[in-house]
Amino acid sequence: MDIIKPRVLSGFMELLPEEQVKFDCMAEALRRTYALYGFTPLDTPLIEAAEVLLAKGGGETEKQIYRFTKGDSDLALRFDLTVPLARYVALHANELSFPFRRYQIGKVYRGERAQRGRFREFYQADIDVIGDGQLDILNEAEIPSIIYKSFTALGLKRFQIRVNNRKILTGFYAMLGLNERAADVMRTVDKLDKIGAEKVRALLVEEGVSPASADEIMDFIAISGSNSEVLSALERYRGKNEVFDQGLDELNTVVSYLGAFGVPEKNFAVDLAIARGLDYYTGTVYETKLLDHPEIGSICSGGRYDNLAEYYTKQKLPGVGISIGLTRLFYVLGEQGYLNPELPSAPADVLVLPMTDDLAPAVALATRLREQGVRTQLYREQKKFKAKMAYADKLHVPYVLFLGEDEVSAGVVSYKDMVTGEQRTALPDEVAALILDGLAKRRQGTPIVEPEG
Amino acid sequence: MDIIKPRVLSGFMELLPEEQVKFDCMAEALRRTYALYGFTPLDTPLIEAAEVLLAKGGGETEKQIYRFTKGDSDLALRFDLTVPLARYVALHANELSFPFRRYQIGKVYRGERAQRGRFREFYQADIDVIGDGQLDILNEAEIPSIIYKSFTALGLKRFQIRVNNRKILTGFYAMLGLNERAADVMRTVDKLDKIGAEKVRALLVEEGVSPASADEIMDFIAISGSNSEVLSALERYRGKNEVFDQGLDELNTVVSYLGAFGVPEKNFAVDLAIARGLDYYTGTVYETKLLDHPEIGSICSGGRYDNLAEYYTKQKLPGVGISIGLTRLFYVLGEQGYLNPELPSAPADVLVLPMTDDLAPAVALATRLREQGVRTQLYREQKKFKAKMAYADKLHVPYVLFLGEDEVSAGVVSYKDMVTGEQRTALPDEVAALILDGLAKRRQGTPIVEPEG
Repeated sequence: MDIIKPRVLSGFMELLPEEQVKFDCMAEALRRTYALYGFTPLDTPLIEAAEVLLAKGGGETEKQIYRFTKGDSDLALRFDLTVPLARYVALHANELSFPFRRYQIGKVYRGERAQRGRFREFYQADIDVIGDGQLDILNEAEIPSIIYKSFTALGLKRFQIRVNNRKILTGFYAMLGLNERAADVMRTVDKLDKIGAEKVRALLVEEGVSPASADEIMDFIAISGSNSEVLSALERYRGKNEVFDQGLDELNTVVSYLGAFGVPEKNFAVDLAIARGLDYYTGTVYETKLLDHPEIGSICSGGRYDNLAEYYTKQKLPGVGISIGLTRLFYVLGEQGYLNPELPSAPADVLVLPMTDDLAPAVALATRLREQGVRTQLYREQKKFKAKMAYADKLHVPYVLFLGEDEVSAGVVSYKDMVTGEQRTALPDEVAALILDGLAKRRQGTPIVEPEG
Repeated sequence: MDIIKPRVLSGFMELLPEEQVKFDCMAEALRRTYALYGFTPLDTPLIEAAEVLLAKGGGETEKQIYRFTKGDSDLALRFDLTVPLARYVALHANELSFPFRRYQIGKVYRGERAQRGRFREFYQADIDVIGDGQLDILNEAEIPSIIYKSFTALGLKRFQIRVNNRKILTGFYAMLGLNERAADVMRTVDKLDKIGAEKVRALLVEEGVSPASADEIMDFIAISGSNSEVLSALERYRGKNEVFDQGLDELNTVVSYLGAFGVPEKNFAVDLAIARGLDYYTGTVYETKLLDHPEIGSICSGGRYDNLAEYYTKQKLPGVGISIGLTRLFYVLGEQGYLNPELPSAPADVLVLPMTDDLAPAVALATRLREQGVRTQLYREQKKFKAKMAYADKLHVPYVLFLGEDEVSAGVVSYKDMVTGEQRTALPDEVAALILDGLAKRRQGTPIVEPEG
């Protein structure tokens, strides 16, 4: 028979079992956190009609999309979770209750140029709150808390949530008479991190902003300091533009509830340079950076938008949402040595080795352990004892139980703790209690542990 | 702006939030059960190189597959989880420990003719144990236990796991001198349930089986009764064919450990009519039927095979596995009224209604509840009180908390139990304790409840 060489497509992440457990542990931590905030899980198809998925059309997206025909259907794989959400909410609006709070953790597809750390299939972990016609500012104020709890649940500590409000920017540019070109100006200002202040100013002037206005803009985006310092610096612009004032009020509200939401001051900063390079956002915008790895860029971004589903319905659906690129985050954290090597990754808690011809006692023991929630594997392959122990060791199974004729007739179990090396013989219930106790201790870790400074 | 009508492709299941929670609850029950038996989770790409995915080639599969090009790559969406597993094990064989036990719950794609209850995108929930060169019979004996625990975890009771051994069939046909045509004969016999005994016999003779052999075959597949009756009936064929004898020994082993594995006799039957219409299986084969809905067909099938990855490697990888078609199972159970209407489906356990201008007390209360694991939604949309209660009611949120000026100054919380209608005012910690207690009781249900006979 001809052998086809097995391979995985370039740009597709496939994990070995130990890594997969860590990845799943991260996804599960996000799922639990999102659920704590009252978001309901959704799962939409990976394939949509191309016409529907590309309703917005144009841009980079269309070039990267996986699009194909089947029969006479023009199909495409989703490239994010926002467009399917818009489609979902527009389609099911009459059956949903608003505000509609959903999370979705799922794979999306982009045929990007293959390069290290860029994936063509990757998980996004999104939450959105969608209002029907309007949506209270409290939803925007809550988002930093969700980001904080999500990353804390993963085990991260040294990260900073950065927040701005698009209305402040829009209002400020209107003051300078630049409202027509605010979007372009903001796109240029958004490059600050990448190219520096000097080049941004030069670009602005090049794009037709007067030198005086460019100076004003550079002064404005240079406003920095503690949250209260930035907020008071902004007060001096108050009263000149209604949109600006509204944005400042909103930003004050968001900052004022951080404490009640349990977000420490050190994990949060108002940052006027953040605009999110999209025309989509209209209110609070969010980015999140690892303090020790700013070069990774934002690991959780999003914001407030006014019209989620304008391509699918005339119903006005404002919302606020954030997205975590989970596959990329897993990859970069792995690269930086952030994945917890101590996290239990074994497929089983216990390996039971039957040593008698009649397997019934070993099977009954395994059944009993499983009924108590202990993940148990029976192992009866024809191997030498040493090979069996090596198997347990390689998989990091923490406990091995032996059941020979002596144990069976005495009604006891012999076990070995693979971490301490301790071996003992005890009654089955005592062994189960010891194991459950040990497992409870082992399960306390987070998938990520930051390396010591 | 042009509006594109939002829609979901035909043959693609998309659930509303309440149904999604039930579906996820089923998937989670399977995940937990599989993990208890020492299976590790895997997640392979949905897209593979067409050449790799279609290594086996031919047949219905190739017609149904979603295949397309991107750049100069010939790609295809996976149509099951077995082929990607074979590819995975062949690719990573040096990095895995054998027996390799994995589960995978994931979407697969088949462009079948659209019809009611048939899906083009559907979840499969698979487990497989793969050995390196050989694999102990204990793994085959364990599978009925996993099937039993899986369906019990879902809430099903009236189902039967049916088991046969392909070696018994192969050996039996060899006794009749039909070993060359055993596969064809078995395919015909496999139609017994659909077309009845008479037509099967006629078909066999039509296909060239002598009338005497056809009678022998019909006698053989008519063997029925309790497991021990069937096993003793088979003893009379012993000693005539080595493969038969081996199959009978294996079947005896599988049956002998059922009790120790915790599988009740009533949920299990030896059934000689089961062959699984595939040439792939070589040992124990499994099907599972709902006793009250045999028309649905097998809801969990699989078996022992000798060569998982023959298209990708010369390494001999025998294994045993089963697959549950989760999307279809969810659909048919829903159709039959099996989904538990009492299963908590609310996105939140508590809805907190702030009634003061300063939101800090309400936010702090929500933060405190979340820290105790209570899924909490803050609701501060500008709606009448009645509309707020209707929102909680429609989402089946079990508790609503109010925090007005009076409550805040007294340091208490008012709450309403939405199920009993009871309203009370109490200290925040008392309320949290009451809620946690109520939630623990509510969470005991299974996603499926069988209707009363």
